[in-house]
Amino acid sequence: MHLFYQPEPITQLTEDDSRHAVKTLRLSAGDSIAVTDGHGNRHLAVITSADARRCAFRVTDTQTTPPRPFSVRICVAPTKNLDRIEWFVEKAVEIGIERISFFIGQHSERRVLKLERIEKIGIAAMKQSLQSYLPRFDEATSFTDLLKTVAEEQRFIAHLPANASPANLASAVDPGGHYAVLIGPEGDFSASEIQQAQAAGWTLATLGPNRLRTETAALTACQLLNFVNY
Amino acid sequence: MHLFYQPEPITQLTEDDSRHAVKTLRLSAGDSIAVTDGHGNRHLAVITSADARRCAFRVTDTQTTPPRPFSVRICVAPTKNLDRIEWFVEKAVEIGIERISFFIGQHSERRVLKLERIEKIGIAAMKQSLQSYLPRFDEATSFTDLLKTVAEEQRFIAHLPANASPANLASAVDPGGHYAVLIGPEGDFSASEIQQAQAAGWTLATLGPNRLRTETAALTACQLLNFVNY
Repeated sequence: MHLFYQPEPITQLTEDDSRHAVKTLRLSAGDSIAVTDGHGNRHLAVITSADARRCAFRVTDTQTTPPRPFSVRICVAPTKNLDRIEWFVEKAVEIGIERISFFIGQHSERRVLKLERIEKIGIAAMKQSLQSYLPRFDEATSFTDLLKTVAEEQRFIAHLPANASPANLASAVDPGGHYAVLIGPEGDFSASEIQQAQAAGWTLATLGPNRLRTETAALTACQLLNFVNY
Repeated sequence: MHLFYQPEPITQLTEDDSRHAVKTLRLSAGDSIAVTDGHGNRHLAVITSADARRCAFRVTDTQTTPPRPFSVRICVAPTKNLDRIEWFVEKAVEIGIERISFFIGQHSERRVLKLERIEKIGIAAMKQSLQSYLPRFDEATSFTDLLKTVAEEQRFIAHLPANASPANLASAVDPGGHYAVLIGPEGDFSASEIQQAQAAGWTLATLGPNRLRTETAALTACQLLNFVNY
């Protein structure tokens, strides 16, 4: 059955989804669809009016999925090449993530990021992977402002200092927790950003023996935090 | 220092790398470079002739990295959209993989794959992540022929049957082993392919609770097999 995304009110599809449902999928009144609100509810519904601009439906049943007993938040600097960060968003949502927060670091080449495109990719990946929760995406902020917004108790910064070898994230985390991981830009974190994060209770951690690109490091952290909880 | 890839003989760079070294990086005689042979050896070298078509160098020192005590082989059907499988190759090489084998399944939409492009992406990712081993890439074969080539003792097929719930790959593998994982095309494996693999000693395993795209499943298996060994 075709899965759509529609936040409240649960009465009709968005204009994009209406066109897709009626023009592309050729669904008509009486056809069954599934609609998630992105907050854990999947509604089984029947199309009542196959309008290509506002396709209306009637909910016949609702399945509610509880939130995961752990949460993954990745705080990452947008990559110079947009494709790379968009790819990370698609993959992280498929695999499982609660929140993605963007920040502009001192060494960031890209200083702006359009969140609208990111959200579209996230919605598509949520539907593709048949999930009922849409992760939260935060507008890019400064590194300092980002740190103020992080309340997760298990906080890690992916960085390999020249003078030390921190533990691998896999051995540093406790299962069942709420995690936040900081991933730097191509130019890495600045020394002051590292100090600032450590002063704010973030622990240095590595993601493996190889040097990883920004988007690969971000996805690896996400994968790892999912693995330790399954 | 700039890292180049040059299999035997270790005397000059390829034409592409020579142009890159001399024209783009503007390296000249006397400059130091690093050259990996893709077999675990990283040579420190000095350019002796900055020729833009055949840049010659003299090896001054060689560092040899032992192979990993475990090996990861992913056998995957090429995706309909080439970008997706190429993306998988880049990421898998960055993270760590010994071998990628392609196969054409009964439900595969893409029936051909140019290995030359895949190898170029693999070499770039090996250099990017500062590794000294180039994974092996196998030409796409039929599913039946592929199974004959797999000698790894820990063999898993990523598939979720309707009537059973196999163990997660993370809990199914033993650390320190030699692994092969089968990842199906967008159209999934056929029933006969599943039977064929099980008869050949492949065990069903899942990669998590979500439905993953082919390339996401392939990378997730690769990530997981690396994690259980770190």
